[in-house]
Amino acid sequence: MKSRAAVAFAPNKPLEIVEIDVAPPKHGEVLIKISDTGVCHTDAFTLSGADPEGIFPVVLGHEGAGVVVEVGEGVTSVAPGDHVIPLYTAECGECEFCKSGKTNLCVAVRETQGKGLMPDGTTRFSYNGEPIFHYMGCSTFSEYTVVAEVSLAKINPEANHEHVCLLGCGVTTGIGAVHNTAKVQEGDSVAVFGLGGIGLAVIQGARQAKAGRIIAIDTNPDKFELAREFGATDFVNPKDYDKPIQQVIIEMTGWGVDHSFECIGNVDVMRAALECAHRGWGQSVVIGVAGAGQEISTRPFQLVTGRHWMGSAFGGVKGRTQLPGMVEDAMKGDIDLEPFVTHVMPLDDINNAFDLMHEGKSIRSVIKY
Amino acid sequence: MKSRAAVAFAPNKPLEIVEIDVAPPKHGEVLIKISDTGVCHTDAFTLSGADPEGIFPVVLGHEGAGVVVEVGEGVTSVAPGDHVIPLYTAECGECEFCKSGKTNLCVAVRETQGKGLMPDGTTRFSYNGEPIFHYMGCSTFSEYTVVAEVSLAKINPEANHEHVCLLGCGVTTGIGAVHNTAKVQEGDSVAVFGLGGIGLAVIQGARQAKAGRIIAIDTNPDKFELAREFGATDFVNPKDYDKPIQQVIIEMTGWGVDHSFECIGNVDVMRAALECAHRGWGQSVVIGVAGAGQEISTRPFQLVTGRHWMGSAFGGVKGRTQLPGMVEDAMKGDIDLEPFVTHVMPLDDINNAFDLMHEGKSIRSVIKY
Repeated sequence: MKSRAAVAFAPNKPLEIVEIDVAPPKHGEVLIKISDTGVCHTDAFTLSGADPEGIFPVVLGHEGAGVVVEVGEGVTSVAPGDHVIPLYTAECGECEFCKSGKTNLCVAVRETQGKGLMPDGTTRFSYNGEPIFHYMGCSTFSEYTVVAEVSLAKINPEANHEHVCLLGCGVTTGIGAVHNTAKVQEGDSVAVFGLGGIGLAVIQGARQAKAGRIIAIDTNPDKFELAREFGATDFVNPKDYDKPIQQVIIEMTGWGVDHSFECIGNVDVMRAALECAHRGWGQSVVIGVAGAGQEISTRPFQLVTGRHWMGSAFGGVKGRTQLPGMVEDAMKGDIDLEPFVTHVMPLDDINNAFDLMHEGKSIRSVIKY
Repeated sequence: MKSRAAVAFAPNKPLEIVEIDVAPPKHGEVLIKISDTGVCHTDAFTLSGADPEGIFPVVLGHEGAGVVVEVGEGVTSVAPGDHVIPLYTAECGECEFCKSGKTNLCVAVRETQGKGLMPDGTTRFSYNGEPIFHYMGCSTFSEYTVVAEVSLAKINPEANHEHVCLLGCGVTTGIGAVHNTAKVQEGDSVAVFGLGGIGLAVIQGARQAKAGRIIAIDTNPDKFELAREFGATDFVNPKDYDKPIQQVIIEMTGWGVDHSFECIGNVDVMRAALECAHRGWGQSVVIGVAGAGQEISTRPFQLVTGRHWMGSAFGGVKGRTQLPGMVEDAMKGDIDLEPFVTHVMPLDDINNAFDLMHEGKSIRSVIKY
């Protein structure tokens, strides 16, 4: 079938809105009509050419919501008409990782997904007869997309797709990191580095967890007011200080914070986030995605004196098991998605969404098909 | 009073056996007659001059056992005749850290201890009228030493000091890291980098925890037989492979080990230990002490895909609360200390103990006064 899509034909070029061909779903696959999709920094990262795993031409987009149109052979967990969120972190329920109870990092479709292919090693997208690659197993920048059954969370059909599409990546990543990875407890102190969508979601999660002090850190003080509305209690602009930001946070708190979160993808900030964690037990969670080949460093003394360095992908959330409940939480208002959506626009304007993001003017732009 | 002691007058010189003057214990201090002390790599590290916090002249030694001779004003928890192990990690029970229930890193005497002084900022040791510094709050290379009350574990007077002195550092550090820091569970896989005293203690702890596979890694294959006796199941000499050791361990195990322990103090090995931890949940514990200014590095992707990097000091053991129980465990045979003691010698031979250690010929030499 034909589908309107925003295709990235080459790195560091604007997306082109074209009609692509979408092949029917094969065994274990599902054809989805996407209704809404967020535009995330990870899409921009891959589009920029900095992503070592980036493959072109490709249909980007991984933060969507839609409705099942057609299911391939053997698909039993969803049916046409079901409302779904595509998952870039699949959940097969059968691999060593899914069965461990310790992680959400299912490996069922990992290898082919990383190569921009469906599990059988081929692509369902083409343009003028030339194959186009999938992206993160989702490719939500096409109105019609094909996704593996194990990569779909079935959600309440009453949910507002313009909001819950954000649970496909950013908001879940931030909130999940607070609850699943760091396990923030009532009264704990928290430092959040970077006040984009993920950082704000971390703040919202920390407020849900009844954290005590929530320190919001960004070099752009224009972001502090919104951070306050999400629940931050303290605001620090590293540019206001001559000393390292970790030292500033330690002086503010005595011995550092119980939990810190890096929500930027900057390896120097990852170090600062670790080193402002509380001596003896402070945890630092890496959420941001660093550029190719970049490394984090610290003195091992930081670990020997009790700090824990960890990371989180998709907030540690198991998509098919846990995401439907998070959609319910959003419908009840326990997760507040509306403030994240700063712009809504049609697919034709998607390059504007990238511009707004690069200029720091949006939290999330949502594309409506 | 006079006391025979092995004094380090300057870095990288042999210790000199001399009679020093030991002043009486002040408020909150205790005079101990040391009966036995182990010679540990950390003593050698400081003696070498590589320790940035090393101060000379100093009485080294921090792995001892002895008997209380005299108590200073206000001391209530021990009395003359009590058998004790000096603690380089104090436990005051009153600071934020002791009260947290999350760490053993008490700060009661931390600042002065780091400067080689007693809590009042002075030293109890002198030689020919010139002050000599304390070391790690213990200074067990003097027959008589003065220690803060909060730095003493009172132990069963029936315990064999020649063995339980090793609970003052190495064995507790290794066993404690397994139980308190990594929390190894039955069936878990474990990799141990470095088969010195700490590494062997980690192996013993892993066997106590009923770990499944215990992989012992060392560039000296002569150590494998002893590691097997302690409980290791697999043996790897990195020199036998052309590829990075983390890759070897991952290939041996599928996805890496549940827990890895760095027991050397080599920052490259610390990286390898992290990177051979299981995707999704593997933990890597830094135990070894790295040289001044050295840093650990990795790609943040290692953390984002679920590995945890942490560290441990004194095995996370609270000395006054937990060490007496470990002494009981040793007396019951649940902790087997005898195989660690490869040499016993008088104080006069202490420089031989350092030589044996540097040559890799000893696990622990114990000095008997």
